[in-house]
Amino acid sequence: MFQLIIITLVSLFTLTTVTYGQTAAVSPETQECIGCHSSVSPGIVADWKRSRHASITPAEALKKTDLQRRVSNAQIPKEYVDYVVGCAECHKMNPADHKDTFDHNDAKVHVTVTPKDCATCHPEEVEQYNDNIMSRARNNLKKNPVFSSMADSINGTQRFANMKTTITPPNEKTEADSCFHCHGTQIEVKGTVKRDTDFGEMEFPVLSGWPNQGVGRINTDGSEGLCSSCHSKHRFSLTLARKADTCSQCHKGPDVPAYKAYSVSKHGNIYASLGGEWNFKEVPWTIGKDFNAPTCAVCHVSLLVTENGDVVAKRTHRMNDRLPWRILGLPYAHPHPKSPDTSIIRNKDGMPLPTALSGEPASQFLISAEEQEKRRITMTTVCMSCHSKNWVNGQWARFENTIHTSNEATKTATDIMLTAWKTNMVDNGSLFDDVLEKMWVQDWLFYGNSTRVASAMMGADYGVFAEGRWFSTKNIQEMVEHLKTLNFQSPQAPPRKK
Amino acid sequence: MFQLIIITLVSLFTLTTVTYGQTAAVSPETQECIGCHSSVSPGIVADWKRSRHASITPAEALKKTDLQRRVSNAQIPKEYVDYVVGCAECHKMNPADHKDTFDHNDAKVHVTVTPKDCATCHPEEVEQYNDNIMSRARNNLKKNPVFSSMADSINGTQRFANMKTTITPPNEKTEADSCFHCHGTQIEVKGTVKRDTDFGEMEFPVLSGWPNQGVGRINTDGSEGLCSSCHSKHRFSLTLARKADTCSQCHKGPDVPAYKAYSVSKHGNIYASLGGEWNFKEVPWTIGKDFNAPTCAVCHVSLLVTENGDVVAKRTHRMNDRLPWRILGLPYAHPHPKSPDTSIIRNKDGMPLPTALSGEPASQFLISAEEQEKRRITMTTVCMSCHSKNWVNGQWARFENTIHTSNEATKTATDIMLTAWKTNMVDNGSLFDDVLEKMWVQDWLFYGNSTRVASAMMGADYGVFAEGRWFSTKNIQEMVEHLKTLNFQSPQAPPRKK
Amino acid sequence: MFQLIIITLVSLFTLTTVTYGQTAAVSPETQECIGCHSSVSPGIVADWKRSRHASITPAEALKKTDLQRRVSNAQIPKEYVDYVVGCAECHKMNPADHKDTFDHNDAKVHVTVTPKDCATCHPEEVEQYNDNIMSRARNNLKKNPVFSSMADSINGTQRFANMKTTITPPNEKTEADSCFHCHGTQIEVKGTVKRDTDFGEMEFPVLSGWPNQGVGRINTDGSEGLCSSCHSKHRFSLTLARKADTCSQCHKGPDVPAYKAYSVSKHGNIYASLGGEWNFKEVPWTIGKDFNAPTCAVCHVSLLVTENGDVVAKRTHRMNDRLPWRILGLPYAHPHPKSPDTSIIRNKDGMPLPTALSGEPASQFLISAEEQEKRRITMTTVCMSCHSKNWVNGQWARFENTIHTSNEATKTATDIMLTAWKTNMVDNGSLFDDVLEKMWVQDWLFYGNSTRVASAMMGADYGVFAEGRWFSTKNIQEMVEHLKTLNFQSPQAPPRKK
Repeated sequence: MFQLIIITLVSLFTLTTVTYGQTAAVSPETQECIGCHSSVSPGIVADWKRSRHASITPAEALKKTDLQRRVSNAQIPKEYVDYVVGCAECHKMNPADHKDTFDHNDAKVHVTVTPKDCATCHPEEVEQYNDNIMSRARNNLKKNPVFSSMADSINGTQRFANMKTTITPPNEKTEADSCFHCHGTQIEVKGTVKRDTDFGEMEFPVLSGWPNQGVGRINTDGSEGLCSSCHSKHRFSLTLARKADTCSQCHKGPDVPAYKAYSVSKHGNIYASLGGEWNFKEVPWTIGKDFNAPTCAVCHVSLLVTENGDVVAKRTHRMNDRLPWRILGLPYAHPHPKSPDTSIIRNKDGMPLPTALSGEPASQFLISAEEQEKRRITMTTVCMSCHSKNWVNGQWARFENTIHTSNEATKTATDIMLTAWKTNMVDNGSLFDDVLEKMWVQDWLFYGNSTRVASAMMGADYGVFAEGRWFSTKNIQEMVEHLKTLNFQSPQAPPRKK
Repeated sequence: MFQLIIITLVSLFTLTTVTYGQTAAVSPETQECIGCHSSVSPGIVADWKRSRHASITPAEALKKTDLQRRVSNAQIPKEYVDYVVGCAECHKMNPADHKDTFDHNDAKVHVTVTPKDCATCHPEEVEQYNDNIMSRARNNLKKNPVFSSMADSINGTQRFANMKTTITPPNEKTEADSCFHCHGTQIEVKGTVKRDTDFGEMEFPVLSGWPNQGVGRINTDGSEGLCSSCHSKHRFSLTLARKADTCSQCHKGPDVPAYKAYSVSKHGNIYASLGGEWNFKEVPWTIGKDFNAPTCAVCHVSLLVTENGDVVAKRTHRMNDRLPWRILGLPYAHPHPKSPDTSIIRNKDGMPLPTALSGEPASQFLISAEEQEKRRITMTTVCMSCHSKNWVNGQWARFENTIHTSNEATKTATDIMLTAWKTNMVDNGSLFDDVLEKMWVQDWLFYGNSTRVASAMMGADYGVFAEGRWFSTKNIQEMVEHLKTLNFQSPQAPPRKK
Repeated sequence: MFQLIIITLVSLFTLTTVTYGQTAAVSPETQECIGCHSSVSPGIVADWKRSRHASITPAEALKKTDLQRRVSNAQIPKEYVDYVVGCAECHKMNPADHKDTFDHNDAKVHVTVTPKDCATCHPEEVEQYNDNIMSRARNNLKKNPVFSSMADSINGTQRFANMKTTITPPNEKTEADSCFHCHGTQIEVKGTVKRDTDFGEMEFPVLSGWPNQGVGRINTDGSEGLCSSCHSKHRFSLTLARKADTCSQCHKGPDVPAYKAYSVSKHGNIYASLGGEWNFKEVPWTIGKDFNAPTCAVCHVSLLVTENGDVVAKRTHRMNDRLPWRILGLPYAHPHPKSPDTSIIRNKDGMPLPTALSGEPASQFLISAEEQEKRRITMTTVCMSCHSKNWVNGQWARFENTIHTSNEATKTATDIMLTAWKTNMVDNGSLFDDVLEKMWVQDWLFYGNSTRVASAMMGADYGVFAEGRWFSTKNIQEMVEHLKTLNFQSPQAPPRKK
């Protein structure tokens, strides 16, 4: 019996790096992969072995109750149901669709696994994410000439001569290292290469845009988006996706400091202080039992239930389902776009922006007040798990006031710009390549966004001194001073043109 | 027996989310609250159920030894001693004092629980905190016309016309979302509202300034301050209050980057790396056994003992008990104010500032050199738990040198300002509404403070490149350049006046 | 038996604060130290008691297999082998070499323990570290007149008079509180002091430069470097040294934001989210089993093995062994210096810089292309534990492209400076004391470095908006505007000279 107890103990202790089922059936194809790759890429294999994918078959997964289930396809193809999800299952799926499929030890293998592949077991999640603006992050930037020109003005190579700078466009590597790191690259097959390996000479495809883990990656099967941006390879840990650190990969910089604001909020403090005790693995996720303050996933993504089993929020991978506003200023905060493809938006002046420079929203492309109210209610339901209606209403009122006042600041900064453009003190060929224009961008992209995310999450100082109102106010005054300087630099000179 | 062992195991494993006493007596009033609220606000109820409040009665708490005791009133009123501290105990306490008391299912309930309520069991802590400058954070800002004008210059709405900006004062919501988020709002009852609920139509008070968790909140019973700023509702976790993340809620921004400096200090590193092994729940808190490097609470608040049981430091909620200096520049660092109410301070020029613009301290309002030495010794005793006298003396000498040199930098920045004000190049109607003035503010509020907190906690780079001496030195030079620009913008023009 | 199980349980539970061997032999000398110091400095003693040093003798350590062994001297002097490593073992070692040795209770004790002392058991590590550029961090700054003049321009005391600022050099305390906090002070004995203690009057040495934990500290025995910078006293926890927080002590600021870039990388995210489950204590450190993403130590320092026991990387304390490039711009990124002593470097213009102002590397002092390739391969081997050759090649190509483009930005910024210097618009007596010069410094020291560390570790936004390309591009344009302003401020004036 003593032995029995020790075994019990050991199994309890190993729960954190658990293998969910000891008798899991690994397919012969995957066993073949592991045969070589446990020595060629041992970290990946070890990581996968500790994953849920490695220890539960789709057949077992389908036995779970509706709320517990993590797979959303009740009709998973027969050939997959009785094996755990291993190397071969994913990297040999849909070979004909993948331009990066290559012959590898007599098998058709592709390098990059895509949402289309994941959809075999998780079609609902893929469909939702496909309707999520993040899945289009690459093309929404690349295909929008205004945003693209901003990217070029940041990433290009500047030269100095004759007391001025000129800029040439960035190369593909720089773009992939910069904006498209988060927004996603386009993966393309550029040929093949032969390489000596531990197992003799082998041929591999050469990919451009690789490596990349951006949320809006364009894949070799034509799909847009990437599950492993958040559900990191090859552990696919739910814990990881539910922790705020994952979101910080892309949402910590001055342009979108959501993680920073969260980290100084009461929610973030409780997560940092007590999160070590929480259960990040359970599905569904029980409020109060599994966690006692939200991470990003709680408010924006996860299926939430009460200890009584009541559903508080449905799981969604269209992450704006609970968001009436898009608080990312472009240049003004605005109601969320209807379509994930924002490159189709035109404001009243014909520019591909969700608001006019006057602040007027491009309403026909944005959700209606009714849809906003619906989303406000969805989020309110989540808030009310811990807060009273009074409390939540007060927070909404304050937050929406801040959307308004921060937009007013952007209006003022834009009025300064319009003066500069109209008087030709600043050239309006590109909106982003003069110092004054960059000051203007900081008003809405840094200080406006920071003030709004701080308001949304009660991350106080990010709305005050840390990239918030202090800098917004000061920056606007500096813009005026700068405008005066431009004027004085060439008082009698003809209007500046580039 | 096997079962017995398993039970033992399970209870050991659940220690982290423990319910301290299974037979805890919940009052009938609290049971009634829970009856509805476990479905109406399940997160709060679940959180509370895992709290110490939910599992130990005051009677049991009073049996602890002096050092172990967390309640400081030996005479807790009889009606409270034999029930755990639940919803009703706090939200129905002192109903006549609370302007937000309302009829709720035939009970007098108030929305906001205040330090006066907490003082029923914790009077010493409340008294100490009442003498802590943080408890007056709202009024020390709101009632000080100099500081208030700075807040208005940050939070107001700017407009641009005729090549200059004007600013109108912020509305109440903006103030609550900005400075008063940390400093505290004033909670006032503005009427009542009827609302449909799961239990029929009910009437609730409408509060202004709500929600808020600021440290100097003015409450509906007239009290100032808030315990739940740090002892977050409704778990009231000691772990949370003792971890540095709680302090980061208000002390991470560029104006007071204490958390940042701590996080790169040796202390902060040890906390981040090994803190997961520490015991944050014990009272008293044992140096070396429960933790092996300080968090904020260790140096500034907690009751500390050695493994031999010797008391190294007494608990204090007047958090400057161990601090000779107030290193927050206003504009200069200075000996700590005597009274928590700093709105009474006048410098030699009659301004409500703890130092004159020349740097001279308003000594009659500040602690004496003797009191400074007393506090220096109190802190030294804490340091010497791990460091030699030599070590600690060296650190004090270096820190106080940095107070001096950073004040010198502020003197230089102020000399530039005085030149600008005297020559009318900058209007001195408000001290904070011109670009040059804002540059001046950054000298002491950002760079001076950062350099000093970095010195105090050995958070190196926050005194060098990260908001420290690098920016202070550069900023002062930029102020001079800016002054020259102002001069050149209107060389023959009459003095600028707004 | 039940008791037996409980004991088993308890011992399992206390593993985190384990004492490795209960029968560890503490030397009589150390016992004497502990006799007083457990009450005089209880934190240190408690910390040490929980260390590996306190519970394993060198004799036991030497029985470990080659890969498991943490001591690198097979011939540890006999007098040390059978006692655990306690106070006396370190603080009484090599007394004649230490200028801070003093008589303390009839023993020769020295305050500061140095790498030479550690080398008794860990000679390989000390030797490697001695060849590591970090061990020379103090003198590489102090003895380099260019870098020293930058330090003085940051740390000195500025005064304002006659519309300009002057600066006087910093005092020793300021230097120790600023740059040399990380780079290391020089510890010198300045006399002795008598002090009343709990055990009567005692005499102690007075040290200058103390306290300090800088990586290039100059010690009282003439050695350079410091083990306890990372292996913090007195726990000497391997866990701590292997976590990224230790590195953040010096590598988080805007000048070298490696920790920041890591924290938003996929690696940093996995560490933050799942690191709580990892085993940071094992030697050797097993990829996939002990951890599933790298910390700084994984890529740069640690001995790594696979689950099969294959060695992936050898332990090194010369932390550039796996680094072809030094991406810290001075002002340009360049191949790593050959010698840890960089004060000997002269560029083609005779300046003590690893590159000329034109960008040309001082090649004779830098590693060759062959050595670069060797180091690239060493690092690649580590990467390939989890990534394919394709993946790793893509990352190298992108990273080296970014080294190139960020250097191009520095070239442009430098061209602007050269114009300013040549036309005497800015005085070139010091390279760092004018506003324009400080803008130039930010180009390479802040934005160039940030962009490169972000590229190296895939910490996206630190190469875009957060101190990256956005600020680089904007700053260069601001430099041009500033240059124009200088020109307009004194169009007819003679060239500016200081």
